[in-house]
Amino acid sequence: MKEFTVGIIGAGRIGKVHAESLTKYVSNVRIKGIADPFMNDGLREWAISMGIETASTNYQDIIRDPEIEAVLICSPTETHSDYIQEAARAGKHIFCEKPIDTDIEKIKETIEVVEQSGVKFQIGFNRRFDHNFRSVRDAVAAGRIGEQHIIRITSRDPSPPGIDYIKVSGGMFIDMTIHDFDMLRFVSGSEVEEVYAVGTSLVNPEIGLAGDVDTAVITLKLASKAIAVIDNSRQAVYGYDQRIEVFGSKGSIETGNDLPSTAVISSAEGVTAEKPLHFFLERYMAAYSREMVEFIDAVRNDTDTPAGLTDALRPVQIAKAALASLLSGKPEKVIY
Amino acid sequence: MKEFTVGIIGAGRIGKVHAESLTKYVSNVRIKGIADPFMNDGLREWAISMGIETASTNYQDIIRDPEIEAVLICSPTETHSDYIQEAARAGKHIFCEKPIDTDIEKIKETIEVVEQSGVKFQIGFNRRFDHNFRSVRDAVAAGRIGEQHIIRITSRDPSPPGIDYIKVSGGMFIDMTIHDFDMLRFVSGSEVEEVYAVGTSLVNPEIGLAGDVDTAVITLKLASKAIAVIDNSRQAVYGYDQRIEVFGSKGSIETGNDLPSTAVISSAEGVTAEKPLHFFLERYMAAYSREMVEFIDAVRNDTDTPAGLTDALRPVQIAKAALASLLSGKPEKVIY
Amino acid sequence: MKEFTVGIIGAGRIGKVHAESLTKYVSNVRIKGIADPFMNDGLREWAISMGIETASTNYQDIIRDPEIEAVLICSPTETHSDYIQEAARAGKHIFCEKPIDTDIEKIKETIEVVEQSGVKFQIGFNRRFDHNFRSVRDAVAAGRIGEQHIIRITSRDPSPPGIDYIKVSGGMFIDMTIHDFDMLRFVSGSEVEEVYAVGTSLVNPEIGLAGDVDTAVITLKLASKAIAVIDNSRQAVYGYDQRIEVFGSKGSIETGNDLPSTAVISSAEGVTAEKPLHFFLERYMAAYSREMVEFIDAVRNDTDTPAGLTDALRPVQIAKAALASLLSGKPEKVIY
Amino acid sequence: MKEFTVGIIGAGRIGKVHAESLTKYVSNVRIKGIADPFMNDGLREWAISMGIETASTNYQDIIRDPEIEAVLICSPTETHSDYIQEAARAGKHIFCEKPIDTDIEKIKETIEVVEQSGVKFQIGFNRRFDHNFRSVRDAVAAGRIGEQHIIRITSRDPSPPGIDYIKVSGGMFIDMTIHDFDMLRFVSGSEVEEVYAVGTSLVNPEIGLAGDVDTAVITLKLASKAIAVIDNSRQAVYGYDQRIEVFGSKGSIETGNDLPSTAVISSAEGVTAEKPLHFFLERYMAAYSREMVEFIDAVRNDTDTPAGLTDALRPVQIAKAALASLLSGKPEKVIY
Repeated sequence: MKEFTVGIIGAGRIGKVHAESLTKYVSNVRIKGIADPFMNDGLREWAISMGIETASTNYQDIIRDPEIEAVLICSPTETHSDYIQEAARAGKHIFCEKPIDTDIEKIKETIEVVEQSGVKFQIGFNRRFDHNFRSVRDAVAAGRIGEQHIIRITSRDPSPPGIDYIKVSGGMFIDMTIHDFDMLRFVSGSEVEEVYAVGTSLVNPEIGLAGDVDTAVITLKLASKAIAVIDNSRQAVYGYDQRIEVFGSKGSIETGNDLPSTAVISSAEGVTAEKPLHFFLERYMAAYSREMVEFIDAVRNDTDTPAGLTDALRPVQIAKAALASLLSGKPEKVIY
Repeated sequence: MKEFTVGIIGAGRIGKVHAESLTKYVSNVRIKGIADPFMNDGLREWAISMGIETASTNYQDIIRDPEIEAVLICSPTETHSDYIQEAARAGKHIFCEKPIDTDIEKIKETIEVVEQSGVKFQIGFNRRFDHNFRSVRDAVAAGRIGEQHIIRITSRDPSPPGIDYIKVSGGMFIDMTIHDFDMLRFVSGSEVEEVYAVGTSLVNPEIGLAGDVDTAVITLKLASKAIAVIDNSRQAVYGYDQRIEVFGSKGSIETGNDLPSTAVISSAEGVTAEKPLHFFLERYMAAYSREMVEFIDAVRNDTDTPAGLTDALRPVQIAKAALASLLSGKPEKVIY
Repeated sequence: MKEFTVGIIGAGRIGKVHAESLTKYVSNVRIKGIADPFMNDGLREWAISMGIETASTNYQDIIRDPEIEAVLICSPTETHSDYIQEAARAGKHIFCEKPIDTDIEKIKETIEVVEQSGVKFQIGFNRRFDHNFRSVRDAVAAGRIGEQHIIRITSRDPSPPGIDYIKVSGGMFIDMTIHDFDMLRFVSGSEVEEVYAVGTSLVNPEIGLAGDVDTAVITLKLASKAIAVIDNSRQAVYGYDQRIEVFGSKGSIETGNDLPSTAVISSAEGVTAEKPLHFFLERYMAAYSREMVEFIDAVRNDTDTPAGLTDALRPVQIAKAALASLLSGKPEKVIY
Repeated sequence: MKEFTVGIIGAGRIGKVHAESLTKYVSNVRIKGIADPFMNDGLREWAISMGIETASTNYQDIIRDPEIEAVLICSPTETHSDYIQEAARAGKHIFCEKPIDTDIEKIKETIEVVEQSGVKFQIGFNRRFDHNFRSVRDAVAAGRIGEQHIIRITSRDPSPPGIDYIKVSGGMFIDMTIHDFDMLRFVSGSEVEEVYAVGTSLVNPEIGLAGDVDTAVITLKLASKAIAVIDNSRQAVYGYDQRIEVFGSKGSIETGNDLPSTAVISSAEGVTAEKPLHFFLERYMAAYSREMVEFIDAVRNDTDTPAGLTDALRPVQIAKAALASLLSGKPEKVIY
């Protein structure tokens, strides 16, 4: 198998995760360079340990390198559109962390550039690669639960991000629920038509003061006629809580959380199992690896990526409708 | 303990269930009479086997009997208001199957009559007496999950009633979801302020043609600021599916379904547990018994019944708001 | 259905349980009398509340009563053989609590008397009537796990009986494990050929000083070639622990414990379910009822009882072999 | 961190697993060479892809290489003793797959050589590194279940090895149960004093004809006074079944199997979860990685390995006693 050369823009937490996945799980991949404006000695040492040849402060060192075939964009959201467009024009295949942007028009413009360039594009909806969610999607697609009637997604973070982040993130629906909007499309294979969002700040009143919610229930009508409901919280004290149920004419499929071990202790106090894995990187580490494997496979074999341009756009459109509903207090159509 | 004398109006399925509970589980109770317009030889034989002294076709034989201290009203819904009022005026304590009526004004009028009479009144929300739901209520009331943030109720019947019943039942929200509205009040200890209901007929299009829905998701804002969501289906092919989760600042409490046994078979095909108990009488038999025990206890000890007049009214008011929302396509305030 | 008349000898805990089961769950049964040498006012009042006509101190009032068709023997073990023989000679059908006796010869003699009399006999192995164990027996009998290879029984009491009881009970194998020996025969449909018992007193050294064990593991070879293993403890601090697994060529069937509710609480401390039902009467109440139902049915329909004379004898023979093994430190054949 | 140089003897399945673990999970490790008498083009290509510099047919190329600091012995059992001794004499640290040998004297001789050489030694009991078994060991060591009373290990393979392997493996107790003997020592922290083994061939009669058993129950008395029981089968049709329970004065800790996903499907047929992971490499992949990490850590930090020379010897001694018991039909002391 021919060696495949990639470059990474952004050496933060998620950039490192992808570099490590490529190193460990994808054969014949060479990470030629990594760029980050905050490049420092520690990062350089880490890059060397990963076998990465160059570490620079300038993302253009990645995009302009003629040897680099694919670019992983792991920089802050506000840079995504520009970097995607530049990379596409330079003929690089692109993997980009979600979302492309929080502005629908900018996303559409970027999509157009990518489509014209003909490069492969994959958006980083990592949960699509999780063993639990895949089981559900596969069972649903195989018709095992019949026609879909009700879809329930529970998605709760172990603890809220800092207020500073909340102020710039675009709000919970954009930075967190967006994964659930994607999951709904992924498992149902159907599009969302209307959204009604109820939200409030019960976890931390400062979140409310910052203009955001930390607790929400979102009802969604799908084109398939199924009804979906997402419940979100910024803080589940028992850990990262990510579950789904799809209920239909032939039955129901449901997933629980992954646990550190299957151990159960029975004592005079009760029968106690372990709490769910606490941190999203623990919970989804295998998903991050498979995401990279499937991206590189899609590029190598010239097939569709498992999460393409439409998949990048739709969840943001749904999130916008959810935000509009939160403000209007009424159900809102999703504008496509 | 002094013997306590009751009479039963209505000898259908639920009337019999209560007669048997009284016989088996409540000491020193004498069921003096039962009345049903469709009284026949089979019913008379059953009444004798239960030790019931008189079996008549006229409900007034029960209400007018000076020895009878309490009346169980198990006749069709349209008779409830009148029978309650007559019984109250006759000074009988009253247990009545839900709902009192589907008309709010009539319920209020009936409540007034009962309040003026000073008799005890209990409405038949049997799920309040179920071991699983009680655990949840008790844990929530004890503060074990902290402040309530999200409440999720799944309530699905094993199969839809006949179309004829659906045409006269007042619709799914009145005949089925009413239990969930009550459960929400019961576990949360809070009142519902606003309701948004999405519903459709996916189980059977005839249900839609009859003007009802068979699949619904209902979002409710509580006075406590918690958000609740109920999902309903008229048909869960795997059995009667009744679950709840209350999620709050200190964690979550969740219940599953009761199973015929704990047996699990592991074979080359998979690891298979038993399906939930299929029929509501199986599922809630112990709850029906405890309901009778607590009703008789309340009368005997002159304490509040565990489900009184307000508990009879509120769920119908919520159901009305849910129906209004289904028609308007918008959230609706509950009118109290 | 013709009324059926029974009498009860012994008005202790288990005598009362059977009286209540007959009253609640078996139609057309009249409990004419109950006899207990310790009959007192409290017991007499209870008897009246159960509708029992006579309460005496002399068991012969039961056995000699010509109206009584069946006798329930719920007196101490040392009286069982004599009472069974007298009752059989008087032509009464017999239900007797386990064991008939702790002396094999005496059991055999009693069996002979019963066989000659032609009356029905049922021994009180209540666990045969438990929903979980029945599921296992039925699945095994239906061939769902194929040929049986390994049978595991876990049987642990919540707390040890008093030392006084232990000194006269015949030891743990006779008073407690005997249920497991019966269960093994019940689910396997095969006889035990050889037993190897390891036991010690880890719960309470006084139990060891009294000549008994409180912790044991017993390996059994069955005629079917399957291997069984029973583990026992006198004290599981988390409750009454009664589980079984049958493993075979097509898979495995396994049961867990019954819980007070299905509620699970997830908190920062862990994910906690309820402890198993603590007390054997709670755990097996439904089994005690079904036991009575099936006894009366067998008598009424002149069919075999579900636990007959051989079922009464075999577990004692196995227990004797287990005791012999404990003493010899070697496997011992079961002597039939 | 200084680069650490290792060599691998044996390029079969398990040799490859370790090479991959070193590459992926251990920083600054260089696998300089691998040797296997069946070295071929495919293996050479794989070695290159792993970054292994030399691939030879002669194990001495590894042992004699002055740059190599540690040797992984992944060749057939009959070579282990000789290779260990040669490696120890050459001053190499040693990781060796279990067992060292099936002959106790040879193991002791080998241990002596290793001890005199002063090199680090780790035996490949991979299950010690599994998340489930570690939870149990940690909880037990932390005193969470109090004093140990009963330990139950279920260990069943998904399907038997070929008859040819069985003929030379030393039998089920040596090739399979040896892991359970080690696990018992690992979780209990106590030594086995006496063993009683019952075994037969129910899975495949040819296994019996080859002089081995495929189904066994083994009772073990520990120095701690706890009683342990292991049940084994060569064939669990539902997958690889590896569970443990430690029961003690303060309660019980129990583990289940790892599943491919948490998905549960409820349908008209039943409620079905996934089968346990089928293949030992899937089930224990993370354990194999951690095993390598901890070996290299022990060498680098000059600490004790987590499974040393005594750990290599004891399980073989227990297996010998089990075999002796199987032949004698009586319990046998373990000879240390």
